[in-house]
Amino acid sequence: MDAVNLKKLASQLNLSVSTVSKAFRNSYDINPATRDRILALAKKLNYQPNPLASSLRTQKSRTIAVIIPDVANNFFALAINGIESIARAAGYHVLIYLTHEDLTQEIAFTRHLQSGRVDGIIMSLSSGDSGYEHLEELKHKGIPMVFFDRVYENADTARVTTNDHESGYIATKHLVERGCKKPVHITMAKNISIAIKRKQGYMDAMKDLLPGMSTTIIECGTDHEKNKEMIRQMLTGEQPDGIFSAFEKLAIQCYQCCEETGLRIPDDVKLISFSNLETASLLNPSLTTITQPAFAIGKKAAEILFHTMENKNAVIPNEHIILKSVLEERRSTGKTA
Amino acid sequence: MDAVNLKKLASQLNLSVSTVSKAFRNSYDINPATRDRILALAKKLNYQPNPLASSLRTQKSRTIAVIIPDVANNFFALAINGIESIARAAGYHVLIYLTHEDLTQEIAFTRHLQSGRVDGIIMSLSSGDSGYEHLEELKHKGIPMVFFDRVYENADTARVTTNDHESGYIATKHLVERGCKKPVHITMAKNISIAIKRKQGYMDAMKDLLPGMSTTIIECGTDHEKNKEMIRQMLTGEQPDGIFSAFEKLAIQCYQCCEETGLRIPDDVKLISFSNLETASLLNPSLTTITQPAFAIGKKAAEILFHTMENKNAVIPNEHIILKSVLEERRSTGKTA
Repeated sequence: MDAVNLKKLASQLNLSVSTVSKAFRNSYDINPATRDRILALAKKLNYQPNPLASSLRTQKSRTIAVIIPDVANNFFALAINGIESIARAAGYHVLIYLTHEDLTQEIAFTRHLQSGRVDGIIMSLSSGDSGYEHLEELKHKGIPMVFFDRVYENADTARVTTNDHESGYIATKHLVERGCKKPVHITMAKNISIAIKRKQGYMDAMKDLLPGMSTTIIECGTDHEKNKEMIRQMLTGEQPDGIFSAFEKLAIQCYQCCEETGLRIPDDVKLISFSNLETASLLNPSLTTITQPAFAIGKKAAEILFHTMENKNAVIPNEHIILKSVLEERRSTGKTA
Repeated sequence: MDAVNLKKLASQLNLSVSTVSKAFRNSYDINPATRDRILALAKKLNYQPNPLASSLRTQKSRTIAVIIPDVANNFFALAINGIESIARAAGYHVLIYLTHEDLTQEIAFTRHLQSGRVDGIIMSLSSGDSGYEHLEELKHKGIPMVFFDRVYENADTARVTTNDHESGYIATKHLVERGCKKPVHITMAKNISIAIKRKQGYMDAMKDLLPGMSTTIIECGTDHEKNKEMIRQMLTGEQPDGIFSAFEKLAIQCYQCCEETGLRIPDDVKLISFSNLETASLLNPSLTTITQPAFAIGKKAAEILFHTMENKNAVIPNEHIILKSVLEERRSTGKTA
């Protein structure tokens, strides 16, 4: 059999090569029914578009960069899968850059990308606590950029997050409804946008639901041992009856510290956390979570980016898109079933 | 204060700029004591090398590619951290390419990288079941390449893995020592190098320790729902008293299926798995694991690659480096403490 290529597909379908090409680039400038016909034939003939060939043709890199703080993190792993689901359909490569919460590294990556080695960037900020000049520099270079999760509020581009403030409120309210009188909040220090909002959700819920009660916020850092020490001290010092953790890693440390200090979850202290942990339902006890639509958040960010990249005159709108999280109640906050 | 640069560091230490530069490139061609002096002064003066500037100077991309099957996987997440620990010290960027177990994607990436956009490649193969031509093509391009975990045995380069066969034997032996008479093995289908070795470890242990007993091997695929169906059928059909899982994801599915079918771990069926799960000790019951030195495996692969990249005449040796896994006994195989 002859090699299948765009020309052959086009001739069999009586379409132009340019139209067939659009089907593989996930262009918005094509009739969906036509696209489906093209993709169906391509599948039948086992045709795979060659990204490198099309890169040479278009002078584009057909590559996007995803800059994230961490990969040993279920939220980001799922978000990457969402981003890739869109990028692959469009025949793009995805390069992943990990900042490890290090602003210096984040700046080095963004400088590196100014040279135009990618066609677009999807980014979640490191927890570094100052400086957005590197983001402004990128913006001036005209490289399309979308933020997700940990966003730059003044970026003048699209930002995709979950309902962080509302979910923080819901998590705290859930603890209060389960009988907690002095729930504490543990979070990451520094000015991560989402941490600020989750914390504010806790503060607002406390004010509304337990007026007059003092609030306690434990701000952890990137050093695991120091974090555990802070959590241990909090458990023995404050003796909270509930913990709302803004980050999954900290919830895991709460389990470990409770075991070490002999505290029983949920009898002595109830626990709820933002988490996309695959094993949440298998933990002892199973963990009540605020589960983010991580895959959908990544997918949405990619859809916005590709829509702009594929349409010459499109500009990414300056908007904040919110995809809601879900409360999944389990035994760590007292569910018995 | 004037900007700190290589020249200033060199003059303060009475060294050549080229020597100072080597300290930041993690070159092997520098006296370790000299390197330590340079790095100490750099730290004191808060100097950060600029990777982009040095890339322009050397005509190298100062970038390596890491090609892996999956990122929602604790082994790979930790291995990436090991690779990055070396790459960062050398002032290199790391680009991560995810194949999602798709050979077509793997081939597209390797073709893409033939253009020389990176200086070296570290790779763990997808589970696709045929074809190594794309790896041979890369080899002919002369791009240094090191394999880890899922390796290409005929690559004529370095391969870093754990002791997969021996660990498979140890895992099976552990089940037998805990009283299992008919342990089964669950693994991934296709010809992944490590799956073959782990399975052979199970087969050899069964022959030695339970001679005459029949062996049962469940070969799962990439479809989670189908896998769960196979595991459910195995649990109700074979009624095994022990399960040795070659992959963490399958062990998690065993927990879920046991809960659904009302089987108790470890009373009805004991479970051991290859796993780097952070929550292994927190599961209900805690999971006995064969824990791989994932960080060290990634680090070793990177050390070999960088040693070659930094030394003009060096060739990557054709060798298999084995870093041993550790059996961590927990409640899923009956430990009571």
